[in-house]
Amino acid sequence: MSDEAPQVGVLLASPSELQVLQQTGAMLEKFGIPHEIRVMSALRNPDLVDEYARTAEDRGIQVIVCGGGLSGHLAGAVAARTVLPVVGVPISSKHASGSDALYSTAQMPSGVPVATVAVDGAVNAAILAAQIVGVRDEEVRRRLRKFKDDLAEGLKL
Amino acid sequence: MSDEAPQVGVLLASPSELQVLQQTGAMLEKFGIPHEIRVMSALRNPDLVDEYARTAEDRGIQVIVCGGGLSGHLAGAVAARTVLPVVGVPISSKHASGSDALYSTAQMPSGVPVATVAVDGAVNAAILAAQIVGVRDEEVRRRLRKFKDDLAEGLKL
Amino acid sequence: MSDEAPQVGVLLASPSELQVLQQTGAMLEKFGIPHEIRVMSALRNPDLVDEYARTAEDRGIQVIVCGGGLSGHLAGAVAARTVLPVVGVPISSKHASGSDALYSTAQMPSGVPVATVAVDGAVNAAILAAQIVGVRDEEVRRRLRKFKDDLAEGLKL
Amino acid sequence: MSDEAPQVGVLLASPSELQVLQQTGAMLEKFGIPHEIRVMSALRNPDLVDEYARTAEDRGIQVIVCGGGLSGHLAGAVAARTVLPVVGVPISSKHASGSDALYSTAQMPSGVPVATVAVDGAVNAAILAAQIVGVRDEEVRRRLRKFKDDLAEGLKL
Amino acid sequence: MSDEAPQVGVLLASPSELQVLQQTGAMLEKFGIPHEIRVMSALRNPDLVDEYARTAEDRGIQVIVCGGGLSGHLAGAVAARTVLPVVGVPISSKHASGSDALYSTAQMPSGVPVATVAVDGAVNAAILAAQIVGVRDEEVRRRLRKFKDDLAEGLKL
Amino acid sequence: MSDEAPQVGVLLASPSELQVLQQTGAMLEKFGIPHEIRVMSALRNPDLVDEYARTAEDRGIQVIVCGGGLSGHLAGAVAARTVLPVVGVPISSKHASGSDALYSTAQMPSGVPVATVAVDGAVNAAILAAQIVGVRDEEVRRRLRKFKDDLAEGLKL
Amino acid sequence: MSDEAPQVGVLLASPSELQVLQQTGAMLEKFGIPHEIRVMSALRNPDLVDEYARTAEDRGIQVIVCGGGLSGHLAGAVAARTVLPVVGVPISSKHASGSDALYSTAQMPSGVPVATVAVDGAVNAAILAAQIVGVRDEEVRRRLRKFKDDLAEGLKL
Amino acid sequence: MSDEAPQVGVLLASPSELQVLQQTGAMLEKFGIPHEIRVMSALRNPDLVDEYARTAEDRGIQVIVCGGGLSGHLAGAVAARTVLPVVGVPISSKHASGSDALYSTAQMPSGVPVATVAVDGAVNAAILAAQIVGVRDEEVRRRLRKFKDDLAEGLKL
Repeated sequence: MSDEAPQVGVLLASPSELQVLQQTGAMLEKFGIPHEIRVMSALRNPDLVDEYARTAEDRGIQVIVCGGGLSGHLAGAVAARTVLPVVGVPISSKHASGSDALYSTAQMPSGVPVATVAVDGAVNAAILAAQIVGVRDEEVRRRLRKFKDDLAEGLKL
Repeated sequence: MSDEAPQVGVLLASPSELQVLQQTGAMLEKFGIPHEIRVMSALRNPDLVDEYARTAEDRGIQVIVCGGGLSGHLAGAVAARTVLPVVGVPISSKHASGSDALYSTAQMPSGVPVATVAVDGAVNAAILAAQIVGVRDEEVRRRLRKFKDDLAEGLKL
Repeated sequence: MSDEAPQVGVLLASPSELQVLQQTGAMLEKFGIPHEIRVMSALRNPDLVDEYARTAEDRGIQVIVCGGGLSGHLAGAVAARTVLPVVGVPISSKHASGSDALYSTAQMPSGVPVATVAVDGAVNAAILAAQIVGVRDEEVRRRLRKFKDDLAEGLKL
Repeated sequence: MSDEAPQVGVLLASPSELQVLQQTGAMLEKFGIPHEIRVMSALRNPDLVDEYARTAEDRGIQVIVCGGGLSGHLAGAVAARTVLPVVGVPISSKHASGSDALYSTAQMPSGVPVATVAVDGAVNAAILAAQIVGVRDEEVRRRLRKFKDDLAEGLKL
Repeated sequence: MSDEAPQVGVLLASPSELQVLQQTGAMLEKFGIPHEIRVMSALRNPDLVDEYARTAEDRGIQVIVCGGGLSGHLAGAVAARTVLPVVGVPISSKHASGSDALYSTAQMPSGVPVATVAVDGAVNAAILAAQIVGVRDEEVRRRLRKFKDDLAEGLKL
Repeated sequence: MSDEAPQVGVLLASPSELQVLQQTGAMLEKFGIPHEIRVMSALRNPDLVDEYARTAEDRGIQVIVCGGGLSGHLAGAVAARTVLPVVGVPISSKHASGSDALYSTAQMPSGVPVATVAVDGAVNAAILAAQIVGVRDEEVRRRLRKFKDDLAEGLKL
Repeated sequence: MSDEAPQVGVLLASPSELQVLQQTGAMLEKFGIPHEIRVMSALRNPDLVDEYARTAEDRGIQVIVCGGGLSGHLAGAVAARTVLPVVGVPISSKHASGSDALYSTAQMPSGVPVATVAVDGAVNAAILAAQIVGVRDEEVRRRLRKFKDDLAEGLKL
Repeated sequence: MSDEAPQVGVLLASPSELQVLQQTGAMLEKFGIPHEIRVMSALRNPDLVDEYARTAEDRGIQVIVCGGGLSGHLAGAVAARTVLPVVGVPISSKHASGSDALYSTAQMPSGVPVATVAVDGAVNAAILAAQIVGVRDEEVRRRLRKFKDDLAEGLKL
């Protein structure tokens, strides 16, 4: 994580999600996007989540990526408290394939969207975040084009 | 709803859930349990939910029943903010059978339980709430015994 | 398990569920709630279940927690025979993810609720039981508030 | 239903299942198998079910067919209390496709089988009951052969 | 397998099912029911299955138990060619939880029932077969009663 | 259906499937491929299916399209008895979404493939059959190219 | 649709999706975001999709919203050909609940994300698109804040 | 792979699918059908896929077999660009049972069929491809008959 003010916040609902979501951080690094990783739970630390979500925009955050296994409330709770785009990553666990998390993350009611990626799709969450940052940052968009060309060349992710 | 201070709060995540959850109210009426019905959404009115959940205990509420369709965050958001028992009623909708709501309501992470009843199980939510109130109210428990006897006699619910 | 008369009964449908449900016992211990753990099956020992469920209230039990894998009949069979609140814990097994148990436990017909927690949600079953006991036991409720504060502080469950 | 002592008991968990399970009766009629139809619920009238299941064998019943929607406990509760073969018919409902009932009926633990037919498979339940009765009744088996030939000839069920 | 003429045929759709279905044989042994185990596939050896199913009744077979993983056609193909009761055991595999086999085995069209037991429910298939044989064999029924009593006494299966 | 010898056989497992599968016939008509439509069930008329499948190749049939709802055995039973390519169309029904039929049709064991199209995908079954016939019939392939161009031009199917 | 150059492209895989996706257009209208609605299919008009996706960025499009029922390839095909953020809306159909579309839209492989919203979540797709546009358009973000406040006030969507 | 011009193209969406799809190659070898194996992704290398699909027919390819895990777009993207029959093999992965790939592969919209085989059904994909090649190649069909006879004789695949 660079010294610059973070543009993307990556939130884990539990430390156990770090194994998956550190890929989001690594990928954002590649795109040169300053970011921060935080652990907080909409169900265990609701106040922390409330404060993070409400102040993120003023702190210069542009996209918030949220992990979430099982009934995964984090992405929704954040999306309820900000107008920033929120990316949700359903997380599988030892006993659960992640279908429950996929439904809990994607099936948001009208008015409060969460941009859901694949189960355990931490790399794609970073790329999507970069695409969103790229809406106003031509340099990031250039790196995305380069990444896409490399992908077509068969570079392994 | 009687004049007495409500002992059970029935929360709807959307006015469309009233059709199902008014059965909860009707059943609580039968058990003579004072209650209140409110509409609020953890995703659209997070502040309202936050305040309701945090003040319910002091207002004398003993159980909170929450509806929730789709990714159903209401029961979880309430449970995150109170030590009162929270009963969740997954709600089906025109397009969704309610499996998504069942998973979102039941699959809570460790530390924050929601007492989940069947999809659209509004009557059972009331009975469960009455059983919980009955832990300290012998008169309610007596009515539950009477209800159970009637049920065995084949009275239609 | 203390010497005091048990307030919570924890029932296992099979000895194999002990691995999961001993977490319920450990958590109840933390809350200082006297409890007992029993193994009995609604399908293999129906008479034992019948007797346990019918006499629990008189023995001072206030909540009954029931495990159940596969088609999980235990929680329902108990709920059919008592007016005490019954908490159901769907149990996953080697071959089954626990979805079948979740459906069997939660989808109860009108009149006989089971308060269903997450698949393998043994810790949450204990917390829910404590919340119910807390309806009449201010000391337990105080411990629940302390537990919730600790949870927010990031104590690992 | 003929005057002869019933050989097959057809149990409905709720009067609403009559629409489906009267097909079982009609089909048993065709095979000339005396039967009886009863409404009782393992969850609402557990004593009735207990008594029926325990006395069925002595009353000359040879097979018991049980309907069951949602978490469908009837077939299992009966099977727990008799050594007669028990046929389970998972019943769909307005909101539920019957998958929950299929799992609840079929996924019985080791030791207590239920012979499960298709969701709403009331006709097949009767044929299966007839096949079982046919194990000792050559005349019924003859009628089953005739039925199978007719089926092959394209007679509509 | 005893020297007596087999009363139950146990059919495997593939040798890989032996690991599961030998439990059926072992359990039939306990009940003293002569049986035979055969490997044949409705899809790979349709003629073998055709011949087995059509001649089973004349050979004195009273019940046929069929395994079946994936799209599991064996039980259905046998049921199509006999009026004997057919018990189907859906088999799970490394990649498949057995839900596909459960659907393929249970969801038979009207006219051709298969008595479906739980996924990998080989022990229950034997008990169900014994219950069916017991319709005309009082000695087997006596052993089933003994088995049920032992089960209630907590004997592990 | 033209006077020419049929090149594609379209088999319905039940007359109720005609509503869906007549689209297969209409589409084959468009491609000028002679075909025949037959009703037969692997479970109700196994002999008819056996004979049809074994003689189809000699009669000049090149592809066999089979409908099938619920546990859908028809496509598999045909595929077991011919080396012709068999196309399976899972059929939905009033109570079943067709997922059970999709699994039963697609999840064939190694050695006996069924070329499965979408649930109720009767038009695609015809196009796939035409593509297969096109392997040796340049005129059909030309019509497929024309069809594809028209499709791209936005002609409604 | 205004005269200004469109900033959001809304693509329908079939005219039948208009009923759902016109809500996306109506909502974008509310946020004052110029947009265009097009019908094209990745499977029927692959060239059209190829050209649209490759030229969208140069035409000033900032987000592309894609509908998709069944195996829904449109969002993925577009995402494969642009570095713009792509929002996918799984569409339910008469026979399919939209689960298949949800999986097909969300479960993208690493390297090519699609921001998936709820089944039939056309309104949320517009809000998400607005949130993304808002990353560089303060006026849109202001309207989103106003929308969120109205939502909290209970305005019906 | 022989020196002859390939008649079947086997496409992998990712190198990780080789473990499964090399069985397709091995089986085609047995049938003496010249083939080629290529790795290309409709989402990462869309141009490569576009070119392969459009030129396959002219290169003498008669059938294209495509693997695909998760949201599996490869088979569909190829089918959109050729009139050759396309066989799709849904691939399971560590976290996903392959149900998502089965839906994504099979549930194609009207106009663009994919001949879907079982999850990980690589051997069946080869047999189906051989059956299609056999429509014009009597020698291949002869080998298929031999294979089927061997299968009936119990040769292990």
